[in-house]
Amino acid sequence: MKNNIILSWIEEGVVSIPSFLFSEYKSIGLTDLECMLILQLHAFMEKGNSFPTLEELSNRMTLSLEQCSQTLGSLLTRGYLEILKGHTDQGIYFEKYSLQPLWKKLINHQLLVEKEQTEQQLKLEEG
Amino acid sequence: MKNNIILSWIEEGVVSIPSFLFSEYKSIGLTDLECMLILQLHAFMEKGNSFPTLEELSNRMTLSLEQCSQTLGSLLTRGYLEILKGHTDQGIYFEKYSLQPLWKKLINHQLLVEKEQTEQQLKLEEG
Amino acid sequence: MKNNIILSWIEEGVVSIPSFLFSEYKSIGLTDLECMLILQLHAFMEKGNSFPTLEELSNRMTLSLEQCSQTLGSLLTRGYLEILKGHTDQGIYFEKYSLQPLWKKLINHQLLVEKEQTEQQLKLEEG
Amino acid sequence: MKNNIILSWIEEGVVSIPSFLFSEYKSIGLTDLECMLILQLHAFMEKGNSFPTLEELSNRMTLSLEQCSQTLGSLLTRGYLEILKGHTDQGIYFEKYSLQPLWKKLINHQLLVEKEQTEQQLKLEEG
Repeated sequence: MKNNIILSWIEEGVVSIPSFLFSEYKSIGLTDLECMLILQLHAFMEKGNSFPTLEELSNRMTLSLEQCSQTLGSLLTRGYLEILKGHTDQGIYFEKYSLQPLWKKLINHQLLVEKEQTEQQLKLEEG
Repeated sequence: MKNNIILSWIEEGVVSIPSFLFSEYKSIGLTDLECMLILQLHAFMEKGNSFPTLEELSNRMTLSLEQCSQTLGSLLTRGYLEILKGHTDQGIYFEKYSLQPLWKKLINHQLLVEKEQTEQQLKLEEG
Repeated sequence: MKNNIILSWIEEGVVSIPSFLFSEYKSIGLTDLECMLILQLHAFMEKGNSFPTLEELSNRMTLSLEQCSQTLGSLLTRGYLEILKGHTDQGIYFEKYSLQPLWKKLINHQLLVEKEQTEQQLKLEEG
Repeated sequence: MKNNIILSWIEEGVVSIPSFLFSEYKSIGLTDLECMLILQLHAFMEKGNSFPTLEELSNRMTLSLEQCSQTLGSLLTRGYLEILKGHTDQGIYFEKYSLQPLWKKLINHQLLVEKEQTEQQLKLEEG
C-alpha cells in the first residue's frame, strides 16, 4: 500500500513558483491571503485546470465561497489577474485565468528597484 | 538592463512545493494564513536560510511581527513544525526549522484516505 | 521586446525532476544518454504531451531519429518505461508513455540501500 | 521503513530546470551528453555544492573521469560555463561554477528567434 503513496507523491509532483513572488508580493500590493488564493489558482493551472470554479477553490481553502468570490473579484479589478475568453480550434468556447498581469507587475517592480539602485550608486560615485 | 532581470529570474529560480500540500492543507487542519507562513518558511529554507527570523518573515508578509510570532508558536505547539538544535562539525551551535512533522501528517492523512477507499470498495464488492 | 522574453520564460516555466534520479540513474542501470532521453520524455509529459513522436524527440536531441528509436525500444524492453493504451471517456483511442516503472525501480533501489545500511549497523552493534 | 523513504523523497526534493533548456540546447550548440553533464552540475549547485569535483560528477555518470574532465574543459573553452574565484567575507578562498554564460546564450538565442519572427511577419504584411 505504501508504495502506492510514494508513487502518487512522485506523480502528483510539485508546484513550482517563481521565488520572487514570495519575496515581493507584499511590495506589489498583495496581502498574504490574496497571495494564497493566487497560489491555489497557479496550482490548478499547472495541473491543466485553467479555470477552476469557486467551489473547487473554496473546497481547498479556509476562505468561504463568498470570500473567494470577493477576493477573486478584487484581484481582477485591481489588475493582478485576467480572464481570457475564446474558442478552441474545434470551435468550443472557453474561459481561462491568466497570471500574466501579475508577472508584469513583478517585472516592472524589479525594473524600478534596479533603476533606483543604479541612480543611487551614481550619486555616491559623483559624491 | 533588462537582460539582468531575466538572468536574476533564472538564477533566483523557483520554490518547489509538493502538490499535495495545496490540495490537503485544509484537511490536515491548517488555515490559509498558516499555510502561507509555512510556504514562506519553506521558501527561505530552499534558499539555504533554515532559521529565518521573525523580522525576515514579517517583512515579506502582511502579517505583523506579533502575528507571525503567535502563528509560529501555534504551529510548533500543534506539531506541524519543529525546531532542531545542535552543533555543527566545527562546534558551532545552530537552530533550524524542520517541516518533517508537516510531511508526516500529510503522509498519514493519505494512508488513511487510501485505507478508507480500499475498505469502501471491499464493502461494495461484498454487497 | 525583451519583456516578452521574460514573460515567456516565466510562463514556459521549469521542468521538475526528483533529485534521486540524478544521483541514482547509474545505480539502477541507465547510461547518461538514456537518462537524457528520459528527461526529454518527462519534459514533454510535464507540458501535457504524453506521447511525443520520434521526430519531436530527435528534433531536440543530437541523437538521430534511428538512435532515439533504438534507445526507446531498449528502455521499453528492459522495463524502465511503458506505453499505456486505452480509450478516453469520449471513446478516443490514445497511447501514452508512463514513467511508473522507472520510479518503481528507484524506490526499490532505495529500499534495498536502506535495508543494507540497517543490517550493517546491526552487525556493528553486535560486534 | 517505507515512511522514511517517502520522507527522504520529499526532503531531497526536485531539481528545477528551465523548460527552454530542454527545447533549445541543441540549437545553441550542445550535445545530449554535454547537456547531461550540465544538468548534473546544476543538480549539485541547487543542493548547495557549487564546485563538485570530477570524482563526484563521474561517480554519478557513465562518462569516465577523463571524459568528464575533457567535456568540462570543452564547455569552459567554448563559453557555456565559467569558474568564479574569490574570497568569502571570512577570507576563505573559493572556486565555484557559474551557468550564467549558458543562460545568456539561451536568452540571446531567443531574442534572435523573436526578431526573425517579427521581421518575417512584417514582410508578409508588406506583401
